[in-house]
Amino acid sequence: MHTHAATGVVAELPLSAAAARVAVAGATGYAGQELVALLARHPAVTSLAAYRSDRSGSRRVPGWAGEIQPLDPQPAGAAAALAAAADVVFLALPEAASAALAPALVADGARVIDLSGAFRIVDPATRARWYPETRDADGAVYGLTERRRVELRAARLVACPGCYPTAALLAVEPLAEAGLLADGSDIVIDAKSGISGAGRSATERTHFCECHGNVSTYGVFNHRHTAEMEQELRRPVTFVPQLVPLDRGILETIYLRVRRGVTDADLSSAFGAAYDGEPFVGVCGAVLPSIRDVAFTNRCDIGWALDAASARLVVVSCLDNLRKGAASQAVQNFNVMMGLDETAGLLA
Amino acid sequence: MHTHAATGVVAELPLSAAAARVAVAGATGYAGQELVALLARHPAVTSLAAYRSDRSGSRRVPGWAGEIQPLDPQPAGAAAALAAAADVVFLALPEAASAALAPALVADGARVIDLSGAFRIVDPATRARWYPETRDADGAVYGLTERRRVELRAARLVACPGCYPTAALLAVEPLAEAGLLADGSDIVIDAKSGISGAGRSATERTHFCECHGNVSTYGVFNHRHTAEMEQELRRPVTFVPQLVPLDRGILETIYLRVRRGVTDADLSSAFGAAYDGEPFVGVCGAVLPSIRDVAFTNRCDIGWALDAASARLVVVSCLDNLRKGAASQAVQNFNVMMGLDETAGLLA
Amino acid sequence: MHTHAATGVVAELPLSAAAARVAVAGATGYAGQELVALLARHPAVTSLAAYRSDRSGSRRVPGWAGEIQPLDPQPAGAAAALAAAADVVFLALPEAASAALAPALVADGARVIDLSGAFRIVDPATRARWYPETRDADGAVYGLTERRRVELRAARLVACPGCYPTAALLAVEPLAEAGLLADGSDIVIDAKSGISGAGRSATERTHFCECHGNVSTYGVFNHRHTAEMEQELRRPVTFVPQLVPLDRGILETIYLRVRRGVTDADLSSAFGAAYDGEPFVGVCGAVLPSIRDVAFTNRCDIGWALDAASARLVVVSCLDNLRKGAASQAVQNFNVMMGLDETAGLLA
Amino acid sequence: MHTHAATGVVAELPLSAAAARVAVAGATGYAGQELVALLARHPAVTSLAAYRSDRSGSRRVPGWAGEIQPLDPQPAGAAAALAAAADVVFLALPEAASAALAPALVADGARVIDLSGAFRIVDPATRARWYPETRDADGAVYGLTERRRVELRAARLVACPGCYPTAALLAVEPLAEAGLLADGSDIVIDAKSGISGAGRSATERTHFCECHGNVSTYGVFNHRHTAEMEQELRRPVTFVPQLVPLDRGILETIYLRVRRGVTDADLSSAFGAAYDGEPFVGVCGAVLPSIRDVAFTNRCDIGWALDAASARLVVVSCLDNLRKGAASQAVQNFNVMMGLDETAGLLA
Repeated sequence: MHTHAATGVVAELPLSAAAARVAVAGATGYAGQELVALLARHPAVTSLAAYRSDRSGSRRVPGWAGEIQPLDPQPAGAAAALAAAADVVFLALPEAASAALAPALVADGARVIDLSGAFRIVDPATRARWYPETRDADGAVYGLTERRRVELRAARLVACPGCYPTAALLAVEPLAEAGLLADGSDIVIDAKSGISGAGRSATERTHFCECHGNVSTYGVFNHRHTAEMEQELRRPVTFVPQLVPLDRGILETIYLRVRRGVTDADLSSAFGAAYDGEPFVGVCGAVLPSIRDVAFTNRCDIGWALDAASARLVVVSCLDNLRKGAASQAVQNFNVMMGLDETAGLLA
Repeated sequence: MHTHAATGVVAELPLSAAAARVAVAGATGYAGQELVALLARHPAVTSLAAYRSDRSGSRRVPGWAGEIQPLDPQPAGAAAALAAAADVVFLALPEAASAALAPALVADGARVIDLSGAFRIVDPATRARWYPETRDADGAVYGLTERRRVELRAARLVACPGCYPTAALLAVEPLAEAGLLADGSDIVIDAKSGISGAGRSATERTHFCECHGNVSTYGVFNHRHTAEMEQELRRPVTFVPQLVPLDRGILETIYLRVRRGVTDADLSSAFGAAYDGEPFVGVCGAVLPSIRDVAFTNRCDIGWALDAASARLVVVSCLDNLRKGAASQAVQNFNVMMGLDETAGLLA
Repeated sequence: MHTHAATGVVAELPLSAAAARVAVAGATGYAGQELVALLARHPAVTSLAAYRSDRSGSRRVPGWAGEIQPLDPQPAGAAAALAAAADVVFLALPEAASAALAPALVADGARVIDLSGAFRIVDPATRARWYPETRDADGAVYGLTERRRVELRAARLVACPGCYPTAALLAVEPLAEAGLLADGSDIVIDAKSGISGAGRSATERTHFCECHGNVSTYGVFNHRHTAEMEQELRRPVTFVPQLVPLDRGILETIYLRVRRGVTDADLSSAFGAAYDGEPFVGVCGAVLPSIRDVAFTNRCDIGWALDAASARLVVVSCLDNLRKGAASQAVQNFNVMMGLDETAGLLA
Repeated sequence: MHTHAATGVVAELPLSAAAARVAVAGATGYAGQELVALLARHPAVTSLAAYRSDRSGSRRVPGWAGEIQPLDPQPAGAAAALAAAADVVFLALPEAASAALAPALVADGARVIDLSGAFRIVDPATRARWYPETRDADGAVYGLTERRRVELRAARLVACPGCYPTAALLAVEPLAEAGLLADGSDIVIDAKSGISGAGRSATERTHFCECHGNVSTYGVFNHRHTAEMEQELRRPVTFVPQLVPLDRGILETIYLRVRRGVTDADLSSAFGAAYDGEPFVGVCGAVLPSIRDVAFTNRCDIGWALDAASARLVVVSCLDNLRKGAASQAVQNFNVMMGLDETAGLLA
């Protein structure tokens, strides 16, 4: 794991702060809607303000009675309004908008939880390649909750992981850290994602009739989430996503080589060490998880099959792309930042 | 049935003409694509030219090697090009475009098969209300093939029925003509349609995630196909369509009152008289048809259940909205117009 | 509404009883699983025991850590075990099993919430026709919560309504009671249901490939829910259900005739009078509801379109068949019976 | 490729035989139904007899007017009946039934096209491990049409490939033969299959509600098709299939390492050399194919993405599991065996 700059940490923050005014910018996209619905029922949220950056979106979120306000198109004005309305601001915006807003919000004293890719990549050249619409930024904490709690507690700016990297990293990092993976071996990640992963814009690609009865591959060798996975794993990754005809959920089939002699017990130990007691990671062993198991939850379920004779390992990792892959992991990070019970307002 | 003006009939046409050059205008919509795929394999088609009216559509049709050319945005130019390229022109365009093109094509000597609603409504006031973008026009033959063969043989301009009216009229007309329906009784038509019925444009309504897991009602008391059904049936119709999460197909549940004493045998007789020997209408009796039975075919399957004691009748009528409800009924009409075997190039 | 016998009412019951030990018999069916998941998170449930009556079902419920025990196949033994384990017993069993168990449970001092059709029909001849596997029984309260609260508070045996009748009755009863419906007019109810409504047994009818891309009609003039609707509405009903390719949810399109002169405001008043302040009935007016609006909630959403000139009314009523149509309405009834906040443990 | 014994070859067969009486045993499964539908419209089929081995299946095939007869449960009787009825017998039966029937049919003078796995595996030990219900058999020709035409022309017994191997082998064999793959490198094949691949039996796994909204992995390191792929490729293969919520179709994402220096042009050349002029293999290059492109056709479409710098190659191969993966490839083999135009009765 890379080291984030110390500026993201505010040690003086009272960890027991049990309540907060929150705001969501970008409340009409799929992740934004989920955020609003979760925060509206969150026990520690004392007020919730929701803003939309697009003009065409609907003005209400299912399950929330409040009105979605237009966001000031000027970043300075938007930041001022958001910082006045909230202690913690969730950004569910395109990268360029997040890149413009987040530093101003932090400067105005708000804590920021960003769901875009604007602050995930640390290396400037890599960031410039994959997110040219953003600027170099110090201090963001990479919000893969289970693996970054200490840094998250005092973070001022959290870069929530992408949906695909969340499933991949939770599955591979424990094995890499336990030294079980063969040196220099390939990591192949074949992902199947529901169509909500393609966003709410109506395009030929998201038309029902193009998706129904179909599986389509995209982004081979040029998906931005590959860079995020490689940064965190510090190994090359071959990542191929596919759209499958369902609404929400991701299943990743991960192909690995383990060191000779690694046993199933070694794998169980490594995952157990990483996740025993974790409310939101299900270690399933040989019972391979499937998307329905995790839909609408904040859980990532992980199972595996080892062919010990050939040292080949297949790991299956599943989550709901709009929940653990986006909105509910953001709320989980909020819980950690606020010193709350990490499960507050979330479904396991 | 209303009487169409004689100008639509060209008695001198050689009925044995067994081959034709054809063109499709609007080849990138769902119905247009189906048309091209069907005509490309049609035994009597000697040449096929395809045109698109939109700029964004893809330039190839699955299953056809030809190039789709841009259609001249000026009606006069478009008509001249189409009439030069083809003996028979299929129009799969918006109503306004069809209304502008078809008369010019007929004037240029082409025979026209129009899939839009531009020429379906005979009464000027009714047409002006539901299709204000069109103009009054004489001479179109309403192309419900099984019921208009004589007129179709010599037609110069055919107005193919809407997808919903095709299923409704094939189911109700034989009963009305046999005098089995109770006087003045309601006709309620509850339709379930696949999403291709909403067209190829990418909108919030056609986004996969809005349709998946959903049923949605639309157009209650203001769907244009109601006027078409009422014109043909000469009775008031209550018609409510619903979008259901599938690609193609329509199932209509039709609620009728029959005269006291009408028996199941009477119904069988009426349907048998209408459709015995018809290759494309399946009379299913008590085995109610479902959409999978007719998908990808030119068939309309009709079943029913009678509660004789209360004189209530439920008729179920199914077809593929892109085939019998659009493209393949158009080809069936082409076969009739050309004096060909009516099943040429079609799947029953 | 019919009058239930007084034996269903136990006026001496302490209404403030805020906690209960509960049991679910039939925990492996779709409704049973939902029940367990809801009750496991219910704030007033102090203990939860789950039983399965089938041998093949899985032994765990997603989202609940407990073990599902086998139910004694002998009714006496099963009743004794259930009554010992719980103050309130939910039965999600086939009709014959419910009919055998419920009276014994009541005799043993338990309160019973039955999700089957065993106790819904009051008239002995009607019950014997549609539910011959059951016996005449007095004292069950028909658990359409919004309309039976007074009786439910002290009920010992609650017959939860069927999924289809719940959507139909909540939509039609306010109009009938307000005197808005035309005398002697037909009531036509066309229902579209997700496949979970066909139950968990694996049959040709529930095979994915038979349902995908399909709509199929069943039970015309012989569905048991028709009797239930007619009992409550005291009018003849034409009811036709259809299976549509989605998991959960029902949308009913209801065709009615209103009295001459009835206005949209009259309809709004009637629905407002019935449901203002109700947390679980959404009165949507002209914005017709769809299944996605209510999936996973305990809500029934109702919208309508009136053609005042012809006095025709179309009402659309939506709910989640496994929630408001089964498990969560049962929990809502439990809340009423226990004197709890009616929304406890439920999602609106 | 392994060498099949000469007994499978009947050089004296008149290759120009342009017509045949055919029979299908196992006509009620998904592949069997497709076979019947294809053969019923095949121009060279003079008579078609269909048999079912199960008792519960429906007795009609959509699109075919004939009756499906029961198959004699005694192999000798069944073989005699089939050989009397047909010159060519298609077996769409479980492996044990095919293993019992095929030799008797060949002995009775029929030519046999088997769709099961009974005769695919050549090595006795491998066969005994994966297909213990079968017996060693010489003389079957492995029916991957594009790559076995010479042997197929005179074959008496054809073992049609599995659906997954068909997609995999058509994609990988040309690269292996052209020497483009890195020595000793892994072959990872991640397959996504529609639910019809799980067969027609109604099980919990094929229940609509288990499949809807779901992706599930199965058979990791123990799927029988792995042995078939490894036999043909003579390399180890890591194969993982997934069920995705659609009806028909397979998309395989294949992860390969090429030799250093291999270019995109090398890949195009290899695929071009293998498939130029082939009517049923689409070489798509960088435009990755998807399932909708090939549904209902006999085509396998192949595309790829090369990362030349790292010598990683991703190949995407798509087909319809019931057509090119089963029934229509069997018909294609029939065409070759009969000396017919290979496209007779098939859709490209």
